[in-house]
Amino acid sequence: MPKQKITIIGAGLSGSLLAIYLAKRGIAADVYESRGDMRTAEMSAGRSINLALSNRGIAALKEVGLDEYMLAEAVPMHGRMIHATGGQTKLAPYSGRKDEYINSVSRSGLNVALMNEAEKYDGVKFFFNEKCVDFDCQSGEAKFASGLIAKGDTVIATDGAGSAVRDAMMHGGISRFNFSQTWLEHGYKELHIPPAANGDFQMEKNALHIWARGAFMMIALPNFDGSFTCTLFLAHKGENSFEEIVSRRLTQINADHKNNFHLSALSAKSAANSVLDFFQTNFPDSIPLMPTLVEDFFTNPTGNLGTIKCFPWNVGGKALLLGDSAHAIVPFYGQGMNASFEDCRILNQLIEQHGADWKTVFDEFTASRKPNADAIAQMAEENFFEMRDAVADPIFVRKRELETKLEHEFPDYFSKYSMVTFREDLPYSVAKRKGNAQDKLLMEICAKVDDVSEIDLNEVVAEVRNA
Amino acid sequence: MPKQKITIIGAGLSGSLLAIYLAKRGIAADVYESRGDMRTAEMSAGRSINLALSNRGIAALKEVGLDEYMLAEAVPMHGRMIHATGGQTKLAPYSGRKDEYINSVSRSGLNVALMNEAEKYDGVKFFFNEKCVDFDCQSGEAKFASGLIAKGDTVIATDGAGSAVRDAMMHGGISRFNFSQTWLEHGYKELHIPPAANGDFQMEKNALHIWARGAFMMIALPNFDGSFTCTLFLAHKGENSFEEIVSRRLTQINADHKNNFHLSALSAKSAANSVLDFFQTNFPDSIPLMPTLVEDFFTNPTGNLGTIKCFPWNVGGKALLLGDSAHAIVPFYGQGMNASFEDCRILNQLIEQHGADWKTVFDEFTASRKPNADAIAQMAEENFFEMRDAVADPIFVRKRELETKLEHEFPDYFSKYSMVTFREDLPYSVAKRKGNAQDKLLMEICAKVDDVSEIDLNEVVAEVRNA
Repeated sequence: MPKQKITIIGAGLSGSLLAIYLAKRGIAADVYESRGDMRTAEMSAGRSINLALSNRGIAALKEVGLDEYMLAEAVPMHGRMIHATGGQTKLAPYSGRKDEYINSVSRSGLNVALMNEAEKYDGVKFFFNEKCVDFDCQSGEAKFASGLIAKGDTVIATDGAGSAVRDAMMHGGISRFNFSQTWLEHGYKELHIPPAANGDFQMEKNALHIWARGAFMMIALPNFDGSFTCTLFLAHKGENSFEEIVSRRLTQINADHKNNFHLSALSAKSAANSVLDFFQTNFPDSIPLMPTLVEDFFTNPTGNLGTIKCFPWNVGGKALLLGDSAHAIVPFYGQGMNASFEDCRILNQLIEQHGADWKTVFDEFTASRKPNADAIAQMAEENFFEMRDAVADPIFVRKRELETKLEHEFPDYFSKYSMVTFREDLPYSVAKRKGNAQDKLLMEICAKVDDVSEIDLNEVVAEVRNA
Repeated sequence: MPKQKITIIGAGLSGSLLAIYLAKRGIAADVYESRGDMRTAEMSAGRSINLALSNRGIAALKEVGLDEYMLAEAVPMHGRMIHATGGQTKLAPYSGRKDEYINSVSRSGLNVALMNEAEKYDGVKFFFNEKCVDFDCQSGEAKFASGLIAKGDTVIATDGAGSAVRDAMMHGGISRFNFSQTWLEHGYKELHIPPAANGDFQMEKNALHIWARGAFMMIALPNFDGSFTCTLFLAHKGENSFEEIVSRRLTQINADHKNNFHLSALSAKSAANSVLDFFQTNFPDSIPLMPTLVEDFFTNPTGNLGTIKCFPWNVGGKALLLGDSAHAIVPFYGQGMNASFEDCRILNQLIEQHGADWKTVFDEFTASRKPNADAIAQMAEENFFEMRDAVADPIFVRKRELETKLEHEFPDYFSKYSMVTFREDLPYSVAKRKGNAQDKLLMEICAKVDDVSEIDLNEVVAEVRNA
């Protein structure tokens, strides 16, 4: 392979990991990042504080030698801890096997580790505060807000859901560029549960906590420092929405104002009321755990949740979209980062096969990954409903119990969740197809019984194997 | 209602019709068109030469008093004239009732008639060569390439599939703007069948001619002057594609060049060969009708076929997308223009109801029209397969025969095609839902018989009524 230099747009999780993969093959990478260096400047993460790292992501980290390092700072989560409105909790394990669990990792910690590792290689250079604003699909030049123009042997755009390279492809760079962006009616807001005074976790640490309330929900993932990061998923507008809480606050301010209370004091009081009322009704057990709830609620931004799909992902051999720039998904399967890391792993395999024949590498990457990206995008949207609603459906609860038993008894049985999360050898599209067929079968079986103990496991597993 | 002035972006079919509707209510309209005045300059249509006008479109034209004028210059099409490869033809009627047919009209003729009618009103002003390049979703100002800034009481964007107003909504003007553009692998090219020497039509005039060949097809619509405009729908790439025909031409040029033929002569010859070979194999009966086939093929542009969806369609009361800017569809149901004219009719009803409360008018318009636009978009994509493939499926042919008989016998029976095309009182979404259920039922019935005469029509129609 002739000596190559690749322009990577974006030093996020995917861009940094990709730089390591390339460096290990002797391919140089200039990595341009729109923001400052998060290792030296205090940066708002801009994105979620922690993430669930699972097998697909780990498989990639392992190939670049970072899996053990990252898992040492991760908090294993063995199941969903379901919080009822009354405060009762129940653990629903992710798998019937002890060694199958997901890991809560710090997004910034992981990003920093990847950048540090990448910089150990001579061929990797990071350029910060360089915002890509355009890409010339004819010449292959990437253009930056600073005026800088970068042109290597090819460009890989890991610049996320708002990718400038994808925008250029869409706006005339590629004829007949298929594109869709679809937003959920729900947004999200991060909230904080600090460690207890003695530094301990305030709730069970080895679980993903979930307060499922039908039309909305809150989850919490443990951080290595004893805290949890909660994420409230709530409609932007309508009943039980971010807008409703904010407008209730304004109504209270106005009412109090008429009563001549001191404005700044009552503003804080009204804010507290509108948020606390909502939490008291829906997540009362969380209130004592969140001393900064009201402040966090009005300070932290409300994020949007969207799915982005496009095709093709490459401009011949001149540029490739990878990660969120090609396939941003909603977070409900915990697979966004894992899918992007898998992208890097598959791209590396294709470079192994085809060398610097970038057009072939990118064409095959797109052909191989697009059906899998579409599959996880759909499963992620569907899992929102499962997390919000299905945990309250008795048939579904029995089905999960049955699956846990099957996984415990049969090493070759994997639930759909397990296929997606723990089987890095199975493409997402296969996990989806098999998983859906299996789900249908098991739901039918569980609808007919009152208790899982009535079910003949051998019979079920035989049916699954034949399906 | 206070005196209002509306900025309309685009003087195409929808924009011009809308101006008349508004003018009739005493609402002034400034209509900005990116191109020159097609009444004074020789313009390439840029779009299809003729269009199928059917009941939904006629209903709108009737409300502005232009239906009779337009139908006088239209050519009625009573069915599909299906051309077999061997040249045999067979008429498949659109309906079992004589008074249900579609009309081939000239796009430019209709556009000119609408502009002329609009200009009869004092309140309507057209501004040509004014290309809208941006819209400020905060201030409501439309910005033009000339530097002009327009701001009326509100903006209605009838600027088509590439709408600048929609782009502004998408790029930050509206948060969580849902958008998709999806392109077919097939493109289209217009070709020409002139009148015979005596001025007569060279084929049956009162039909939409169709050469269905599975992976591709050609259609022809009659023009009032005795000619037909053919549209060849062919894949852009791969087997039997535009690319293949062009590359075969280049191969032939190169081969001939080696044999030292004179280059310009052989280029024409090679071009002729590549196109004529393709037509000889697939549409041999059309060749004698098209004296300029080869020239037209290489001169006329190859168009793309796409579906555009978005949501919302309005920026509060500041702007509304209407017609193709909100919902561009593929042409296979002949409903693009009809859907846009229906948009104008429904918008007019909502103005009647709510006056100049533009936010309410636009919100209700979007809520009412979006499900119908989605329905016709999907039916239009699906009809491509029906036109290409199903006319060759014997069960489908029997089903169409059965439907024609049912329509002939039962005044209250309407096929899906008839509901979409002839029932302006039925929303597209209802036509789709009822039509799909009915299609399923009739296909099942027709799969069980060898001949439609075996079917008890009373029994079928009773089943349809109960479905």
